[in-house]
Amino acid sequence: MVRDEAKGKIKLVGTKLAKDIEDARNPTLDVPVRALSNVSYDTKSGFITLGTKTAKRFFFNVAHVRKFVQTIEAAASAKDLLEVGKHLSLREVFYRMKRTIPGTQINVVDEQEESNKAIEDLELITGVSREQLHINANKNGSAAGKIIIEDKGDSIDWSKLGSGGWSIPSNVEDIKFKKVDAKFVIYAEKAAEWERMHEDRVWEKLSCIIIASQGQATRGVRRLLQRLHEEHKLPIYVLVDLDPWGTYIYSVLRSGSIGLAHISERLAIPDVRYLGLTPDDVKKYDLGKHLIRFNEIDLKRLEQIRNYPWFKDDKRWQGFFDKMLALKGKVELAALTSKGITFLSDKYIPDKIKNKDWVGD
Amino acid sequence: MVRDEAKGKIKLVGTKLAKDIEDARNPTLDVPVRALSNVSYDTKSGFITLGTKTAKRFFFNVAHVRKFVQTIEAAASAKDLLEVGKHLSLREVFYRMKRTIPGTQINVVDEQEESNKAIEDLELITGVSREQLHINANKNGSAAGKIIIEDKGDSIDWSKLGSGGWSIPSNVEDIKFKKVDAKFVIYAEKAAEWERMHEDRVWEKLSCIIIASQGQATRGVRRLLQRLHEEHKLPIYVLVDLDPWGTYIYSVLRSGSIGLAHISERLAIPDVRYLGLTPDDVKKYDLGKHLIRFNEIDLKRLEQIRNYPWFKDDKRWQGFFDKMLALKGKVELAALTSKGITFLSDKYIPDKIKNKDWVGD
Repeated sequence: MVRDEAKGKIKLVGTKLAKDIEDARNPTLDVPVRALSNVSYDTKSGFITLGTKTAKRFFFNVAHVRKFVQTIEAAASAKDLLEVGKHLSLREVFYRMKRTIPGTQINVVDEQEESNKAIEDLELITGVSREQLHINANKNGSAAGKIIIEDKGDSIDWSKLGSGGWSIPSNVEDIKFKKVDAKFVIYAEKAAEWERMHEDRVWEKLSCIIIASQGQATRGVRRLLQRLHEEHKLPIYVLVDLDPWGTYIYSVLRSGSIGLAHISERLAIPDVRYLGLTPDDVKKYDLGKHLIRFNEIDLKRLEQIRNYPWFKDDKRWQGFFDKMLALKGKVELAALTSKGITFLSDKYIPDKIKNKDWVGD
Repeated sequence: MVRDEAKGKIKLVGTKLAKDIEDARNPTLDVPVRALSNVSYDTKSGFITLGTKTAKRFFFNVAHVRKFVQTIEAAASAKDLLEVGKHLSLREVFYRMKRTIPGTQINVVDEQEESNKAIEDLELITGVSREQLHINANKNGSAAGKIIIEDKGDSIDWSKLGSGGWSIPSNVEDIKFKKVDAKFVIYAEKAAEWERMHEDRVWEKLSCIIIASQGQATRGVRRLLQRLHEEHKLPIYVLVDLDPWGTYIYSVLRSGSIGLAHISERLAIPDVRYLGLTPDDVKKYDLGKHLIRFNEIDLKRLEQIRNYPWFKDDKRWQGFFDKMLALKGKVELAALTSKGITFLSDKYIPDKIKNKDWVGD
């Protein structure tokens, strides 16, 4: 989506309200409901989506007016940003929106939670993502591999960036994929595994791209993975530890999360492949001594995750979770170092990919 | 230091122990003491240093043997890494060291804390840093600006990397600075400020380099800043929020920390300049409404920091802290957005640098 389209959507909101005022109607916004009651797993698309319920928000309503004004203020900020072609972080937009209404002591927002919510409402009302409105999430993550991209007029070859790689920006909407020689993408949960693969030049040996953020993938990273998957049909492999947190990271990449249900379609990758450690690997690679026992929180988390709709009726995943519980503990990818410094790169990953030994579609 | 030198230092440790055994002496290691009693602020160098106290560690001593063996195991891991020219993270080395001693149920290490300590002891004994021993810290951070570096055979122009920049590796020892057109470096505490400066092309307008990690600078970032400062005489400016955490980040960059006292000389930058928000800025830029009140922890932290030896006798810094206390709260750089989207880049930074309005030497 180009900047003009996003600007057009913002303008539509303003025009509608101006019309309400001209016609002497109480100005209203139709805001899709973001409660759990309006969120569901769509088996057809394979991800969490928002239902069709909307709520009316009125300007002349004491209970609505604060949120109403905040949403309009968020729209004004987005309009400013789109006009000058600049971006701001959520925190920065908060400070811009923390304006004192002239002649009063009242700030439009007092807490960042309010501006965050207003921006999410604006995403819902306009159908335009925060990133497209020039409001950025956190920056985090590195990339390397067989691809040349174009960004801000620079041509960047991800195979020629030394030991560091390319630093992934918070907003990847404007990146162009110029030349893609990669056959797939490996997303690693941790920077240590990324550095392992990079030093061992896995991306060169296997013709691929390697990406990491830190733990839960940022919105920028998720969108980048999705774009590579959709625009270039690259399979995405997720390399995580064998623990509830690793499985959750995979799950969010696969099907989205409740909090971001309204944006699943721009982030989720239903056929993402789990390349992380499995309970079978623990036996195969003799990692039993590196087990770290589950605590109460791990067990509770595991129970929640295995009951997600996309795992609940999947026999392979239920078997996976049964074996995880039987192990009574978690195992980290770093434990593979006990088998050899470059075991992950030289054996684990190539074998799994060659033998199609991943979990997923 | 080249790989061979590091290998030589490791070998020295082994040769000495072999000699002890040949001569039928109890094998011993001389380990510099890392307790507070052996740490002090060196006014001449301007940073925290380790004193000269050492302790003898014996192999035939029930209280010493576990640590003794761990240190030797760390040396063996470093030797392996140096020989094959590969690197591992601290976590990965832990798993390599977690070896079961043949014929027993005893692991050389059971917790990462043990392997971390053993590696630090090895740094102390050999005088070679962890990074030079091919054991890496965490990877985090981005860079952009007027410099071309060489790394792993790649030539990387930090001014041609799109919106993302270069992702800083955990280990920057082998990077070569090929062409430096920058006049100084700005280190930002947060990625959001880095993206602000990058989008506004501050590094181009002011001929500089911009670097960020996330909060406390990683060892890799600190070493990179120090190398740019020492090898190219570039002044380093630190851009942080006005709060005890921001002041602490500056303080560690300046003088080091107690935990890393043995490595200060490779990390500390005594004449680093504070470019962060000051209490005077709060008045000057009318940021009073964005004050976030200090809590008990903030106040305690502030009291500790202002009593650090390098701040205690510095009138300018004591005045700074007095005014901070009088404000009774903290202010974030992001609040400058209330003055204009690009205020930080177009006004705040250029003015401060032009008017030498920083704190430091």
